[in-house]
Amino acid sequence: MPPKVVFEVDLTKPWPEQPVPGHNRWHPDIPPVASVKPGEVFRVECQEWTDGQIRNDDSANDVRDVDLTRNHVLSGPIAVEGAEPGDLLIVDILDLGPFPHGTKTPHNSPTTEWGYTGIFAKVNGGGFLTDYFPDAYKAIWDLHGTTCTSRHVPGVRFVGIAHPGLIGCAPSHELLQEWNRREAELIATDPNRVPPLALPPLEKNAVLGTLKGPEFERAAREAARTIPPREHGGNCDIKNLTRGSRCYFPVYVPGAKLSMGDLHFSQGDGEITFCGAIEMAGWIDLHVDLIKGGVAKYGITNPIFRSSPYEPRYTNYLVFEGISVDERTGKQLYLDATVAMRRACLNAIEYLKKFGYTAEQAYIILGAAPIEVRVSGIVDIPNACVTLYLPTEIFERPILPEEPPTAPTSGQVARAT
Amino acid sequence: MPPKVVFEVDLTKPWPEQPVPGHNRWHPDIPPVASVKPGEVFRVECQEWTDGQIRNDDSANDVRDVDLTRNHVLSGPIAVEGAEPGDLLIVDILDLGPFPHGTKTPHNSPTTEWGYTGIFAKVNGGGFLTDYFPDAYKAIWDLHGTTCTSRHVPGVRFVGIAHPGLIGCAPSHELLQEWNRREAELIATDPNRVPPLALPPLEKNAVLGTLKGPEFERAAREAARTIPPREHGGNCDIKNLTRGSRCYFPVYVPGAKLSMGDLHFSQGDGEITFCGAIEMAGWIDLHVDLIKGGVAKYGITNPIFRSSPYEPRYTNYLVFEGISVDERTGKQLYLDATVAMRRACLNAIEYLKKFGYTAEQAYIILGAAPIEVRVSGIVDIPNACVTLYLPTEIFERPILPEEPPTAPTSGQVARAT
Amino acid sequence: MPPKVVFEVDLTKPWPEQPVPGHNRWHPDIPPVASVKPGEVFRVECQEWTDGQIRNDDSANDVRDVDLTRNHVLSGPIAVEGAEPGDLLIVDILDLGPFPHGTKTPHNSPTTEWGYTGIFAKVNGGGFLTDYFPDAYKAIWDLHGTTCTSRHVPGVRFVGIAHPGLIGCAPSHELLQEWNRREAELIATDPNRVPPLALPPLEKNAVLGTLKGPEFERAAREAARTIPPREHGGNCDIKNLTRGSRCYFPVYVPGAKLSMGDLHFSQGDGEITFCGAIEMAGWIDLHVDLIKGGVAKYGITNPIFRSSPYEPRYTNYLVFEGISVDERTGKQLYLDATVAMRRACLNAIEYLKKFGYTAEQAYIILGAAPIEVRVSGIVDIPNACVTLYLPTEIFERPILPEEPPTAPTSGQVARAT
Amino acid sequence: MPPKVVFEVDLTKPWPEQPVPGHNRWHPDIPPVASVKPGEVFRVECQEWTDGQIRNDDSANDVRDVDLTRNHVLSGPIAVEGAEPGDLLIVDILDLGPFPHGTKTPHNSPTTEWGYTGIFAKVNGGGFLTDYFPDAYKAIWDLHGTTCTSRHVPGVRFVGIAHPGLIGCAPSHELLQEWNRREAELIATDPNRVPPLALPPLEKNAVLGTLKGPEFERAAREAARTIPPREHGGNCDIKNLTRGSRCYFPVYVPGAKLSMGDLHFSQGDGEITFCGAIEMAGWIDLHVDLIKGGVAKYGITNPIFRSSPYEPRYTNYLVFEGISVDERTGKQLYLDATVAMRRACLNAIEYLKKFGYTAEQAYIILGAAPIEVRVSGIVDIPNACVTLYLPTEIFERPILPEEPPTAPTSGQVARAT
Repeated sequence: MPPKVVFEVDLTKPWPEQPVPGHNRWHPDIPPVASVKPGEVFRVECQEWTDGQIRNDDSANDVRDVDLTRNHVLSGPIAVEGAEPGDLLIVDILDLGPFPHGTKTPHNSPTTEWGYTGIFAKVNGGGFLTDYFPDAYKAIWDLHGTTCTSRHVPGVRFVGIAHPGLIGCAPSHELLQEWNRREAELIATDPNRVPPLALPPLEKNAVLGTLKGPEFERAAREAARTIPPREHGGNCDIKNLTRGSRCYFPVYVPGAKLSMGDLHFSQGDGEITFCGAIEMAGWIDLHVDLIKGGVAKYGITNPIFRSSPYEPRYTNYLVFEGISVDERTGKQLYLDATVAMRRACLNAIEYLKKFGYTAEQAYIILGAAPIEVRVSGIVDIPNACVTLYLPTEIFERPILPEEPPTAPTSGQVARAT
Repeated sequence: MPPKVVFEVDLTKPWPEQPVPGHNRWHPDIPPVASVKPGEVFRVECQEWTDGQIRNDDSANDVRDVDLTRNHVLSGPIAVEGAEPGDLLIVDILDLGPFPHGTKTPHNSPTTEWGYTGIFAKVNGGGFLTDYFPDAYKAIWDLHGTTCTSRHVPGVRFVGIAHPGLIGCAPSHELLQEWNRREAELIATDPNRVPPLALPPLEKNAVLGTLKGPEFERAAREAARTIPPREHGGNCDIKNLTRGSRCYFPVYVPGAKLSMGDLHFSQGDGEITFCGAIEMAGWIDLHVDLIKGGVAKYGITNPIFRSSPYEPRYTNYLVFEGISVDERTGKQLYLDATVAMRRACLNAIEYLKKFGYTAEQAYIILGAAPIEVRVSGIVDIPNACVTLYLPTEIFERPILPEEPPTAPTSGQVARAT
Repeated sequence: MPPKVVFEVDLTKPWPEQPVPGHNRWHPDIPPVASVKPGEVFRVECQEWTDGQIRNDDSANDVRDVDLTRNHVLSGPIAVEGAEPGDLLIVDILDLGPFPHGTKTPHNSPTTEWGYTGIFAKVNGGGFLTDYFPDAYKAIWDLHGTTCTSRHVPGVRFVGIAHPGLIGCAPSHELLQEWNRREAELIATDPNRVPPLALPPLEKNAVLGTLKGPEFERAAREAARTIPPREHGGNCDIKNLTRGSRCYFPVYVPGAKLSMGDLHFSQGDGEITFCGAIEMAGWIDLHVDLIKGGVAKYGITNPIFRSSPYEPRYTNYLVFEGISVDERTGKQLYLDATVAMRRACLNAIEYLKKFGYTAEQAYIILGAAPIEVRVSGIVDIPNACVTLYLPTEIFERPILPEEPPTAPTSGQVARAT
Repeated sequence: MPPKVVFEVDLTKPWPEQPVPGHNRWHPDIPPVASVKPGEVFRVECQEWTDGQIRNDDSANDVRDVDLTRNHVLSGPIAVEGAEPGDLLIVDILDLGPFPHGTKTPHNSPTTEWGYTGIFAKVNGGGFLTDYFPDAYKAIWDLHGTTCTSRHVPGVRFVGIAHPGLIGCAPSHELLQEWNRREAELIATDPNRVPPLALPPLEKNAVLGTLKGPEFERAAREAARTIPPREHGGNCDIKNLTRGSRCYFPVYVPGAKLSMGDLHFSQGDGEITFCGAIEMAGWIDLHVDLIKGGVAKYGITNPIFRSSPYEPRYTNYLVFEGISVDERTGKQLYLDATVAMRRACLNAIEYLKKFGYTAEQAYIILGAAPIEVRVSGIVDIPNACVTLYLPTEIFERPILPEEPPTAPTSGQVARAT
């Protein structure tokens, strides 16, 4: 028997008007929309993370103007019978994908078999290299089964490692309080920064399931924004959490209250353009089970997971190194993996420009294709060494240093006008 | 025909007394010890990085007391005919390994087919988790061909991804000056820190090939220490730079002056215990070639390399997540991949303790086994998400959450007395 | 834009009554049902190979009584504009899968997300080990996205390598004639054998697209049965011809006339139970292109293909050897890979029986799971050596020789009553 | 501690004159040369299989004239303490390789770091395609650590999967008798065939350890030739039995009496040129253990083994199909995997000829490189379908059908004069 659908979405309606009420903040009091038993298999449908604000077209105006108070639209919470705080919730990711063409009618595209990658503007979200890419750009990807191509990034074709960017259980009140405390403290160190250091709770555009009235208002003032990954998992954006993986999530509230969203057809490690994955609406099939008392038994703080045997295995990588010296000032940082990663990314972009890609195309390739970013050295004071693994098989044009640099490709990414 | 040996070591003699004079600092004026042609294949012998200070025994006193002014002992520089600044030096890593038993007599072990992993004391080098592991520890590994086991870490057996921890070309005078400037500035921000933020040039115990007298003295005052990776590569400690890889190094001085050392039988991403790899003396076979003007042609800043098809491919990973919240203070950091990695490491150690390993054994496993550390998310403000991939196939005892926690192993790592 | 559907099936109707007329024999004169251009992407729907004779239930009576004159039901032929004899037709397999639940209504199952593996009776089809398994059996598989399980084979869960068992271009009249000649000669050597040596053309139940009247009758008398793979590809049952593969088919007739069917969710090398794959109805997305004159240019006789980076990569195999000595008579055969393979299969079955599987379950596992069968030695007279690679990760119970033999599983395969 | 060497070879002396007496026939009465305990690690040295008859030069006269009564020279037997008939002998292959240059002096080459592949003449051994390649040819390979190249096959470079072509325990008297019976019966069906169907016992050039006088004579008359793999393993030529594998061998005589030889630096599935691997002298490190009564416990007939995680993983294969129709007569064979494999090999050779290789070079590539040969279909009467997987990454020149055919390479294989 096929999985029952415990959360259904209507791709023509915004989140507050969905037949099944989802949410877009984290709060322990959001009532479950459905209940499943340990051992059960079920399907969850998801809207893409911005609630359908981005269109399958050739302008990046929508990325530039996206309203970031509406995300991430989350499907759930789903109660798991018998789950109690301190348990580990086993979640097997059986499969996921875009909605097959014809099964849903989206309002923003002629087909459901598409996705997009956005470079977010510095004034509205930013990204890992936002100082170099302050403006908004967009690439549309056509999803051909398990592979994808983009009219905005010619000469590239690859198999995605599809995954939910965001999945986790509801926090307890205590944990939520702790999140709000520490993030508020960080924001207070530079409250007017652009882009901001973190995002505080925000009632505007909050969707909290069936909560209404004063209950809604209280919860909306407390509820955590969905951008960061936290102890419960959440928006981890781990590209390898794909079909065939088995995850173990800490349970904080009775019933666990599992939610998810932000499906990605593919993503590079780091998701560097902010919305760097190939974002899509779609479905995900799950199987759940419980390990009673598993949190203490296995000493768990954050979720853990078992990787899948079913990933594309590219084996020919071109690898770029980065070290923790600021590239603009020449300043030496101390074992700063973030800076070392930035430099590895910049090195890769510089290289790709020699082979006919624009900087924006290169940036998008690194965000969307299955690149790996590894922290190779973190003890050789004062330099961290981070390495970026770019699979050469994804390119349909020469890309190796044995080969001559090549002419520009014909396409370009979509810009804001 | 087999490769000619262009650099030979005597494992019974300290670096200053070697028949072929090596070096342990970076400086453009160190004269080459040999010359090879583009297209040539040759062998280089290497002492282990501390110059043989560590012994194949069951006490960590040697790790505690190691003299860190003597490392890294480097074999070279090797001149490549025709290499000029701005070229890319192609280096194929054909193979490497420990010296076969019987071919060399080491002074610190009954055999050459061994290696060690050290946890360095906080007062003498430290490591990634030095606040948790302030004392010195050591594990000895027996190298059985391509696999290894340790009497100090029972129940673990794995195939190493052997690689040179350190390889690169000599810097130009300008580049060296830049290194010294930026690192001195960093040190000046906290000059008495323990462990130090970085290491300035140091004449004591400097070995600079055949340089003598005033030339030696001047160079020794300027020559860069070997610990950090830098623009030329150097001590990158990239575990995947293994047999079958092809590297492209920027050339800064006529003849390129390639040097290498710090051979590792295996290492986890990050080399987290500082001397976290399985350190060994051994040999490496190389093939070199030149891409004239390659630095500008391909927009190269740091070395790049092509990965090898010949790596052990573990496919069953247990994955630990970490986020950038300080685990002691609860302080929220902003997209700090270093902190997120530390938490992923601590999570993995905590988990392994449930399966019978001591904290020190777990720390050493993460440093020495082929674990992967990936920066999964670096844009989801304010949390970076780093994931640590632990191959479950390396354990000879149960290690999955489906399995009950297990009793302690029989062994323990060597301690300082 | 999603692929246009060039061939649609109705799962409630037998092949002769489909809205789009398919076929179940090979003949050059069957008119195309659709036409595509080089460079085009399109979708083809397929019924399972027996035309829906097998039911999702717990009796193998349907396998025992299956009418083998109705298969394989093929979707096509599809004409490719500009294709001429001597060209190579490039076919990229973009993706394939069962119909998502709810998109089609099958007559023989409550869901479309299922498949089956049959052991065919010796008197009706047989299989590779039919002398040991003369009766009919069946296992039903539940398809959970990319993984599958079976109520008839407990303790096994794996990711399938989905593929079209059958795909190829129509033969020319000359090639068809040659097929008929050589197969008739083989049949004539033992015309009454059970199971038969080969199957001659048969008018009964032939479906030949829109051919009618005398044209139909002539073609039906000549048209080749679909069971064997031949020069054009056809029923190759190559498990690695999966999503991400690129195939190159010889073209024999104007327009190429590409047809396909017999979709498999998974299959072991050899498909040893005859209907050893996990058979399913479903869809397949293709991209086609042409290499003009490619047959002569590249010296092609049979199709060639490029493998996919997207396969499950099991790495822990338990391997069984077989040699070419008949196991019943002790007779020595001369480099007979078929006999050596049979013995490797029997060895694996014997082994699996020690771990609680019935012989029928073991046989079905070898037919349906992604096992590899390699011809390791074919020159060491007089013994061929064939090896069977069984991925141990597919088992949820112990399966290694380090582990004690285990009790029977709870389930059993479906039998005929 | 490094492994003790239990069998040492002198590469300047023929087998009968070795300091440690090996053997070149299988017989239960050959006395062990050494004894090891379960749990022990040890090293065994091996001469190449023909006893050094082949030279590192550019003439194939030695291959043409090789004396096939002298092979395979085997190192052993090694007794394992406590092993009894019915036990399973666990053998871990820890590592193997050619002798490092300088550690041994061979009589037939300026270095030990070499190997060769021979096409044997039809009148002296033959090979899988001997009707197409009736004459003797040879290619010499230079072994650069784990990769190899050949002056006789330019444009190819690959990583070998090193393995012992031959390893196994001594047969019991009963098993030996059975081998002799069945092989004699086969020979009797065509006693004068060239090449022969099988090889009967032969006293000439037999070496049986320390056996002397009448004991030697009796044993030499009975002892089995070493060419075929049999129930005990023996000359299986399984390319994946490499470092990191764990094998389980049936024990037939007290002490098990393990012997091995025929080391291969690399081999394609099938070893199709007869001496198709890259043959070398070298060393192998092993670890042994026992499963008491394991043969009955696990239902073992032939050896089984666990594969290694440490293999080169090429992922871009070009795949050739073959079916069981005789290519010369057009005769249809019934599910004959041997013929189908021959046709897949011929298809691959024909293709490689379009890219500048001679037929002999192509044949040698298929024999020596890590190609895979899989039996994809063995039930689709009357055609078996065999697929040959050629890794495209081993070629340094274009090799795909998207690329134009290329000019001949500069080199050619060594011929007999």
